[in-house]
Amino acid sequence: MCGYTMDEEREQMIQLVESAVDSGDLSPVKGVLDGKRPPDIADILLALPPEKRSFVFGALDREVASETLTLLDEGAMRELLAALDESKIVALIGLMASDDAADIVNLLPPDQVQRILGRISREEYEHIQELLKFPEETAGGLMAREVMTVRGETRVADVLTRLRSEAEKIEQLQNIYVIDGQHVLLGFIPIIRLIVADPESRAKEIMTRDFLSVTTGTDQEDVAALFSKYDLYSLPVVDAGGRLVGRITVDDIIDVIEEEATEDITMMAGTGDEEFWERSPIRVSKARLPWLLTGLFGGIASALVMNHFKASLESVLTLAFFVPVITAMGGNVGIQSSAIVVRELAVGGMSLVRTGGKLIRELKVSLINGFVLGAVLLVIVTIWQGDYRLGVLLGVCMMTIILWATLMGAVVPLLLRKMDIDPALATGPFITTSNDILGILMYLGIATLFLDWIGGG
Amino acid sequence: MCGYTMDEEREQMIQLVESAVDSGDLSPVKGVLDGKRPPDIADILLALPPEKRSFVFGALDREVASETLTLLDEGAMRELLAALDESKIVALIGLMASDDAADIVNLLPPDQVQRILGRISREEYEHIQELLKFPEETAGGLMAREVMTVRGETRVADVLTRLRSEAEKIEQLQNIYVIDGQHVLLGFIPIIRLIVADPESRAKEIMTRDFLSVTTGTDQEDVAALFSKYDLYSLPVVDAGGRLVGRITVDDIIDVIEEEATEDITMMAGTGDEEFWERSPIRVSKARLPWLLTGLFGGIASALVMNHFKASLESVLTLAFFVPVITAMGGNVGIQSSAIVVRELAVGGMSLVRTGGKLIRELKVSLINGFVLGAVLLVIVTIWQGDYRLGVLLGVCMMTIILWATLMGAVVPLLLRKMDIDPALATGPFITTSNDILGILMYLGIATLFLDWIGGG
Repeated sequence: MCGYTMDEEREQMIQLVESAVDSGDLSPVKGVLDGKRPPDIADILLALPPEKRSFVFGALDREVASETLTLLDEGAMRELLAALDESKIVALIGLMASDDAADIVNLLPPDQVQRILGRISREEYEHIQELLKFPEETAGGLMAREVMTVRGETRVADVLTRLRSEAEKIEQLQNIYVIDGQHVLLGFIPIIRLIVADPESRAKEIMTRDFLSVTTGTDQEDVAALFSKYDLYSLPVVDAGGRLVGRITVDDIIDVIEEEATEDITMMAGTGDEEFWERSPIRVSKARLPWLLTGLFGGIASALVMNHFKASLESVLTLAFFVPVITAMGGNVGIQSSAIVVRELAVGGMSLVRTGGKLIRELKVSLINGFVLGAVLLVIVTIWQGDYRLGVLLGVCMMTIILWATLMGAVVPLLLRKMDIDPALATGPFITTSNDILGILMYLGIATLFLDWIGGG
Repeated sequence: MCGYTMDEEREQMIQLVESAVDSGDLSPVKGVLDGKRPPDIADILLALPPEKRSFVFGALDREVASETLTLLDEGAMRELLAALDESKIVALIGLMASDDAADIVNLLPPDQVQRILGRISREEYEHIQELLKFPEETAGGLMAREVMTVRGETRVADVLTRLRSEAEKIEQLQNIYVIDGQHVLLGFIPIIRLIVADPESRAKEIMTRDFLSVTTGTDQEDVAALFSKYDLYSLPVVDAGGRLVGRITVDDIIDVIEEEATEDITMMAGTGDEEFWERSPIRVSKARLPWLLTGLFGGIASALVMNHFKASLESVLTLAFFVPVITAMGGNVGIQSSAIVVRELAVGGMSLVRTGGKLIRELKVSLINGFVLGAVLLVIVTIWQGDYRLGVLLGVCMMTIILWATLMGAVVPLLLRKMDIDPALATGPFITTSNDILGILMYLGIATLFLDWIGGG
């Protein structure tokens, strides 16, 4: 079950499938894929070159094909959908849960969407139409419409009878939701409680009234935080009037948590999560270049600052040698404190009390670190240059830049969040670039003020 | 239900609780906390200063206190445990699931562990003893021992009877596991299937035989990958002989996924995830200083490199101005590609096929970006300095450093993973520091070779 063995097995299967496709004979492919789970089949498909992928996909059973399709990345889905004829797409969508179906329809070209929606069942058509209205990163965009509901007066025995008749569709069912005549959510019943309850009791007598719910517009990050905090397996989604419109399950939330972490890491690194599954180098370049150009212009600004202090540098060239130390340390320190704050905001939200505490902690940490690193630099430079004055200058500058960079690293993400901007955005490149410029400015500025003292001029 | 309202509510409750504690009267505290869920109570406790925390904790009902305790961070748990007397700890542990109980026992001082284990029930003692054997970051360290098992010959009707008698403990139960006489796992039955099945049928007739499982030693990251890939809600854990020893549920996996993402981000930033919930500035400094000292010595090495090229810098001082551009861009580019690779390794694992594809993609991306950024720098420097030769030198150096830094950023995490070291470790600081030194060496080296041409000497 461990990751590495699975990797090796997968390589072997991929090679088997590839050579079967090359020979043009699909029967050995069916042999390899038969009995495999859709997630494993999706893995194999993703490892194949696109032309072979649609060939192998065509050899799958409808049920398996339908589930496998929902597990591919967007690029691969798009490619496969373009290669399939419409009646096949209609059939595959018909087998999906409404949330998966809506995700697929979202990827189709607009002219195809109407033709395909026109060919599916009325009920599914309405489900998908409604789901398409909600932005992707909200509870509405995450939820599935398929929910099992009962009225409060329903007898437990009747609920059980209905469960038996719908058993095939509901292997993953966690809770049954209890609603009133206006579809307003009143409570829920965990499946296990149905087994224990008196068959003659009513749904409303055994339901839990104290339930958590979100509205369709709730941001997916807030939804994920609720699942994580309250250890939920599923969560009902209601509209503004409290009417039940869908439910979100924990497996979708795991994807959200992984996505959000990827978004944080890639934003902090100055790329974007769009490029994560992207194959085209041109599009990846486009995602990264804006950040790099910012960095480049920051570097040019640093050069201008140094040019401004040309006279000091000509008189004491050694000053230039330590510019990389100043810039590197400002960058390192700023990234350390911003990473901690960005991650705390993502995982825990952050109350005013805790925010204040964290800032004070960062200040103390930077005082300690600034003192230690400043002292180390002072000693090294004094010994190397045989002159304590340059050592003192560098030690003091190092302390100051560390204090400044730590605070910037902690404060900028908090400010961005206050402005409702993703804290991870621009934190990395922004802090690194501005610290470079300010660090050099401060270092050479102080050095120039004390130029006579450190032996220049 | 949205994050911000909850924050405000929480602030209010915290203030209410604080002032009640200050007045020394606990009855209003009980009023505020009554009916609150343990995760919300834990939030409030964490926001209180430690001395007030144990005072409020003492006012909670046993059941609520027991669950709340498991939801605190390690620091707060340790503090509370130190303030509780042993019979209270024994009572609280007695109410916990075995995995939570083992986590608490893990935090107790060694001399207290034996006294406390000696006072709990025999069955729970054995459960905890066994769980304590497994490393924290393995399936054994994650699992709970409480599993509902039946033999294959058991009639469904008898399983239902047993469920009814144990109903209180098992609200969150997903599956019932079917074992043979040696406790070897044969299959599982989702609860819902019990409702549908003929009461006279046998467990083995309705169980799913094709199940996923992990062994106690499986790394928690691999366990999380299985949950994510196969959309699992729970997963059985077996020993080397295939005997069922416990089960892992998806709520624990959400914690693992968040932990691992935090670990990646903090490692890449050169801190450590230990400091994430840490309050002591000294301990936080200790976690960050090794990385910063590495960076400092890297900076000193950069200074030595520049000192080596003193003659060239004296002859063309302008060369020094562009050192920050070279170092900043090498750092930015390296972090971009390493962040993508680290995240891909974390989320998807990485097959040989995909690894090769990614490296080629990174190479193409760096060629495009290097060309664009090199050209921009060439033009700017040529205009600014009024001399195309320095522009050409810097453009070419920029291209080379971008190519180099991208490849290092992509290759180092892959190499670390091959050596079974966490790819996120040292990627950030390591790449930034080594790129600084190599970038300056290359830049000044090439400049010195062409010194006559660019107008020095």
